[in-house]
This record gives sequence, structure tokens and C-alpha cells, in this order.
Amino acid sequence: MRGCKYGTHRVIEPKGVLPQAAQKISNDMTIFDNEMLIQVQALNIDSASFTQIKETCGGDEEKIKAMIMGIVNERGKMQNPVTGSGGMLIGTIKAIGKDLTDRALKVGDKIASLVSLTLTPLKIEEITAIKMGIDRVEIIGTAVLFESGIYAKLPDDMEETLALAALDVAGAPAQTRKLVKKGQTVLVLGANGKSGLLCCYEAKKQVGEEGQVIGLVRSENKKKFLEETGLCHDVIIADATNPIQTLEEVLNVTNGKEIDVAINCVNVPNTEMSTILPVREEGIVYFFSMATSFTKAALGAEGVGKDVHMIIGNGYSLNHADITLDDLRESKVIRDIFEKLYL
Amino acid sequence: MRGCKYGTHRVIEPKGVLPQAAQKISNDMTIFDNEMLIQVQALNIDSASFTQIKETCGGDEEKIKAMIMGIVNERGKMQNPVTGSGGMLIGTIKAIGKDLTDRALKVGDKIASLVSLTLTPLKIEEITAIKMGIDRVEIIGTAVLFESGIYAKLPDDMEETLALAALDVAGAPAQTRKLVKKGQTVLVLGANGKSGLLCCYEAKKQVGEEGQVIGLVRSENKKKFLEETGLCHDVIIADATNPIQTLEEVLNVTNGKEIDVAINCVNVPNTEMSTILPVREEGIVYFFSMATSFTKAALGAEGVGKDVHMIIGNGYSLNHADITLDDLRESKVIRDIFEKLYL
Ligand SMILES: NC(=O)c1ccc[n+]([C@@H]2O[C@H](COP(=O)([O-])OP(=O)(O)OC[C@H]3O[C@@H](n4cnc5c(N)ncnc54)[C@H](OP(=O)(O)O)[C@@H]3O)[C@@H](O)[C@H]2O)c1
Ligand SMILES: NC(=O)c1ccc[n+]([C@@H]2O[C@H](COP(=O)([O-])OP(=O)(O)OC[C@H]3O[C@@H](n4cnc5c(N)ncnc54)[C@H](OP(=O)(O)O)[C@@H]3O)[C@@H](O)[C@H]2O)c1
Repeated sequence: MRGCKYGTHRVIEPKGVLPQAAQKISNDMTIFDNEMLIQVQALNIDSASFTQIKETCGGDEEKIKAMIMGIVNERGKMQNPVTGSGGMLIGTIKAIGKDLTDRALKVGDKIASLVSLTLTPLKIEEITAIKMGIDRVEIIGTAVLFESGIYAKLPDDMEETLALAALDVAGAPAQTRKLVKKGQTVLVLGANGKSGLLCCYEAKKQVGEEGQVIGLVRSENKKKFLEETGLCHDVIIADATNPIQTLEEVLNVTNGKEIDVAINCVNVPNTEMSTILPVREEGIVYFFSMATSFTKAALGAEGVGKDVHMIIGNGYSLNHADITLDDLRESKVIRDIFEKLYL
Repeated sequence: MRGCKYGTHRVIEPKGVLPQAAQKISNDMTIFDNEMLIQVQALNIDSASFTQIKETCGGDEEKIKAMIMGIVNERGKMQNPVTGSGGMLIGTIKAIGKDLTDRALKVGDKIASLVSLTLTPLKIEEITAIKMGIDRVEIIGTAVLFESGIYAKLPDDMEETLALAALDVAGAPAQTRKLVKKGQTVLVLGANGKSGLLCCYEAKKQVGEEGQVIGLVRSENKKKFLEETGLCHDVIIADATNPIQTLEEVLNVTNGKEIDVAINCVNVPNTEMSTILPVREEGIVYFFSMATSFTKAALGAEGVGKDVHMIIGNGYSLNHADITLDDLRESKVIRDIFEKLYL
């Protein structure tokens, strides 16, 4: 039998919502023809959720295990009822529904789910270990991926934690590849961060010889660090919450010309105007940061009379996992940095 | 002397922010070379702001006048300190700085400012009348428009209030014209509302003979109303906060095919998924609604594995005022509806 592409056939309550918005979903492990069954090895719990659980349990490992078991038994998925957030999982393919057999996957392949645990049917038999420092919960259990559920095959040529760190922000470099054109001038805000580095790399590949990639960082230290990577043509120092300073520093390195594309990879609020101001009319403003406010962007652009094309950073983009893992393979500089930070 | 294009030369405190974020700006009415001076006739106060003022003053007209005078004298602009919001103004051009004389404007032209009062230097000599029902304050006073400040010449061939009602949502039809292509299938959510009607009209013009414009409304009444306008090929009934119902109703009228573009003109929260779900891979999702949540859109699209292009509805778009006023001129149907509702 076929289920709904988006998994609504597993929603128990309230009826009519998508699995992510559901209070409770079915974690019956008999799969539909358009589902896949995963033998789960580990859950990477979202950091806000893990912190909340750890604090509630006073750091006691047994209590943490019991609390996680309780949530999953109650809801059919690992969605923290307080923070609302989930995380992702790692496991191997145990069965593939007959409508999905044309996928380039086989039983036994190791994958990471790239959809949130907040919508993934999960059944835990046993929690075998809790790795406190890295928000990781090792389990014996199974999970279901819907037809629309995205995932990435974990590569053989790099450490799992390295791949996961990169996959976490895979939407950003993939979108950058699609948005940036030859010869353009591109600003990356938060250029020394995880997604920022990948975006600089992709942007530099796209703009080619005539283009210019400008990385924005907020201290001398970070400037030196980013310059040494060679991932940008220019590195500027500015506070991304200060639009006037940002604009001036950008125009300084562009001979006063407004830029074509701005990519926001910062992790703090109130950086909308710094992303909008340096961009030329009909240029592109790409917000990857989850701290972006819709209304601040919409009203802010109007307030300064800028006809810019503002894009909400979709966490998913076609082939985003492959694009991002390839970036790690191609760029020794980024791989070295990621290995230092995320191994 | 030239000021900053965005008006930062008038910011008194705190230093370094844009005029909208400032506590106090200079309302000295000597203009810079790249500013314009407006003889103001009326302020259209933002509805949230006007309600707050009216309530604080117990509806007493003299107290309301005193409160508005107090705010403007204190801040140099009409930005309600509680709601943070402003409104727009109507007036005539009194002087044009010498760097802006190439604009198609002359002293004496009647205009509406399309940037918010929250960033517009304003000096009120006298408040002559308060029109309670329509949040309008008639004054004798002057205001300054910065180089980046957008405005629209008020047309001779329609009532001022009619033009203002349309200009309020001008970004939506203008963006629709740019985004929608011939032969496409387009869904407008909130199709019977002010921006929705204009978007349907523009979409229908763009898709041509082979295309399909689908209007979503939430009741039989509204369906009948919208069908009679002839602005859509199909009208469907669904609750825009229910993504599954919305998806099913859309697929019903498209023979099961996903659509190319969805335009959200609804004025309530939690409609992100209904806008995303019906759209095909690489299709466009345009959020005009200010009730849109950035994170719900970004995480929601990822959760259902949709590589859609999600756009933040910029209040401004090149020629948006002309495009929208032309729509009112071209479509007798829309003009009649607007005259009934907004005259
Ligand atoms: N749209 C999506 O689907 C999606 C998916 C995953 C993540 N995200 C979001 O993407 C953002 C970035 O993620 P990430 O993993 O790349 O974060 P990250 O590695 O922590 O990088 C954040 C960067 O922002 C910089 N920054 C912070 N405040 C700044 C300021 N005032 N001025 C200039 N730079 C500043 C940081 O600089 P320092 O090094 O000096 O601190 C750092 O370089 C987060 O908001 C995250 O939520 C979005
Ligand atoms: N991005 C920008 O720059 C900008 C500028 C101006 C305005 N806006 C925003 O644009 C939005 C629309 O403005 P507007 O003036 O066009 O508003 P409007 O005339 O009040 O229209 C709102 C429409 O949404 C419909 N609606 C409400 N809840 C619904 C539901 N659950 N299911 C289906 N339809 C529903 C309403 O239907 P009923 O008739 O049945 O109530 C109405 O047709 C607002 O959120 C506004 O803040 C944005």
C-alpha cells in the first residue's frame, strides 16, 4: 500500500496536519510501498533540545535516557515538547518499499537523514550510550523515511562527523552555486563560519577570474584567518548588525560599486539591513541565517527603496549533499579547517 | 551639501543606525542637495499605532492631537514609541534639492510617500483635523524625503483614497508581473483580498491563454464573489492554514499536476506549508504576507524535501506604483470593488 508522499498517513493526532506539526505519529515499523526502513545507529539531537533535556535531568545519564525514551514512546518521534526541535539520525538501510526501488540506494547502505527527527517515525529498543559533549545518542532502533524525506549516503572517504558537520549547512553552498554568476561581486557575511566558508568557496568558483568575493568578519584575528585560506578576494572587518559600517567597508573594496549578491551566514539577529544595503538594484539577497526576520527584511528593503530579490534560505536544494561533500573533497583548506573543528 | 542617500546624516541618536532604527532624527527643514521638501496635507497613521494612541487618550481628540505633537517634537518623526510603527503621508512638493532635479517631478506635484513615517523627518505646525474612522490626521506641516525615499505621484483620474488603498499593496502585483511567465499555473492564496485581487489580475495577464490562475478563498460566499470577477480560471475553497486540504483542492483543478508559482496574500499566520506544498520542484513561492515566519518557511520546505525558490515580498519593486495604478485603470472589475470598499 502507498502512503502519502509527505507522511500524513502516519499522523495520529491532530488529524489533517503534516507529521512535523503532529502531536503523535505512528511508529509502527511495517513500511508502506513508498517508505524506507532505517536501522538506526545514532541520533544527533538538536543542540537546543539536548541542552533542555540535560538540564531537566541534572546531567544524570539514566534520567536522560528515560526522558528520551518517554518522548519517543509518547509521540512516535524524537521531538522535544519544550523546544519543539529534533535533530537528525544516522543508520543503514534495512528495507526499501517497492515504489522506491529506482533510487540509487541498496539495503545496507549507510545514510544520514537530512529531514528533521521532528517528523520521522522512530522506535527505540535500547539506548546504548549518550555522548554528552556532542549531543549524540547511540541506540538500537528503527526509523521510517517518507517518500519526500531527504537523506545523504555517507561517503567512505571521510569521517562521519566531518560529513555530518558539512551536511548540516549543505543548503547554503548548493544555493550559492546556483545563484552566483560569472564576473559578479559577492559579499558573504559571517564568512569565517561553517556555512560561510563553504559559500565563499562556491562563490569564488562561480565568479571566475573577473569576479570578486568579499568575506565579512568581525575581528582582526578572523580576518587573518580568512585571508590565509585564500577563499576570498577581499576580507573586510565590520559588525554585521551595523549596516552603515558594513556598507562603507564593502564600498571601500569595490571602488564604490554596489555588489550583485549578498549571502548572509551570520548566526545573530538584526543583520538584515547590512545584507540589503550593499546590494545593487535587482541584485540578490540570500538569507541563510535562521535569525532572519521576515518583516525586518521586507519593510527594511522598502524603507531604503531597494528593489532587491530577497531569498529565504531553503535547507534543501537539489543535490545539496553531493555538492557540499564535493566541496570538502576539492578544497583541502576547508577540509583541514573542518577536521580541526568538527572531528 | 549632499546628505547620505539613506538619510543617516539626520540621525541624532543613537549614532550609526539608519533613520528607521533611530530614537531621534533631525527635522530641520533646510534640505540637503539630495533631499526633497514636502508640504504635508495629511498623515495616514498605521492602524496599530492609531489604535494605541486612540486608546491611551480615551478617544479624546485634543489629547490625541497633543500626543501626536509630542511624539513628533520628541523624535523628529511620527514613530509610535509603543508599536514602533508609522504610516505614510500625502502632500505636495515644496522644493527639490539640486541633485534630484532630473526626476520626473516638479514643485507643486501631489505625492504620497511610500516609505514609512518611521524614517521620515517631519515638522507639524498645526493639526487641523483627526478623521477617526480612517486613521487620518490632517496637518499643516513639512517633511523631508531622502534620496532613497520612494513616493508616487497621485494621479488625477482617481480618488486619492482609492489610489492610496492600492499603493499600500503595490509590491505584490508588481512582483507578480515579474515572476509569472506565459503558460504557467499560478495559485493565489487570499485571492479575494486587496493584494490577492491585484495579483490574480496580473497573473492572468502573464500566463495567457494556455496558463491557469487558481484563486484560493475560504468560503462559498467568497468563492461566488471571486468567480464573478472573472479574475481567475478556477476558484477553490480551502483553509490556508491547512496544507493537506489546500494541496488536495489545488491538485483537483490541475489534474494532479503541481503548480509553477504560489503567491501568498493571506493576512494570518501558519500558512507557509500551504504555500509550499502545491509547488513543483524549482517552482516559485512568493510570500507577500507579513505574517510569514522565516524559520517555518525554511525548515518546512526542507522537511518536505522541496527545492522551491522562496521569495520575501519586498514592499518596493521598480515602478510598482505605476503598475498598480495601471491595474486599477485597466480592470473595471477591480476598480469597482476597490471603490466600494475603500472610497
Ligand atoms: N536556512 C537553513 O536551512 C539553515 C540550515 C542550517 C543552519 N542555518 C543557519 O545558518 C546560520 C549560520 O550557521 P553556521 O553553522 O555557519 O554558523 P557558524 O559557524 O556559527 O557561523 C556564524 C558566523 O557568523 C559570524 N558572526 C556572528 N555575529 C556577527 C556579527 N555581529 N558580525 C559579523 N559576523 C558575525 C560568526 O563570527 P565569529 O566567528 O566571530 O563568531 C561566524 O563566522 C545560523 O543562523 C544557522 O541557524 C540555516
Ligand atoms: N510584503 C509587503 O511589503 C506588504 C505590504 C503591505 C501588506 N502586506 C501584507 O499582505 C497581506 C495581505 O494584505 P491585504 O491588504 O491584501 O489583506 P486583506 O485584503 O485583508 O486580504 C487578506 C486575505 O486573506 C484571506 N484569509 C485570511 N485567513 C485565511 C485562511 N485561513 N484561509 C484562506 N484565506 C484566508 C482573507 O479572506 P477573508 O476575506 O475570508 O477574510 C482575505 O482574502 C497582509 O499580511 C499584509 O500585512 C505586505
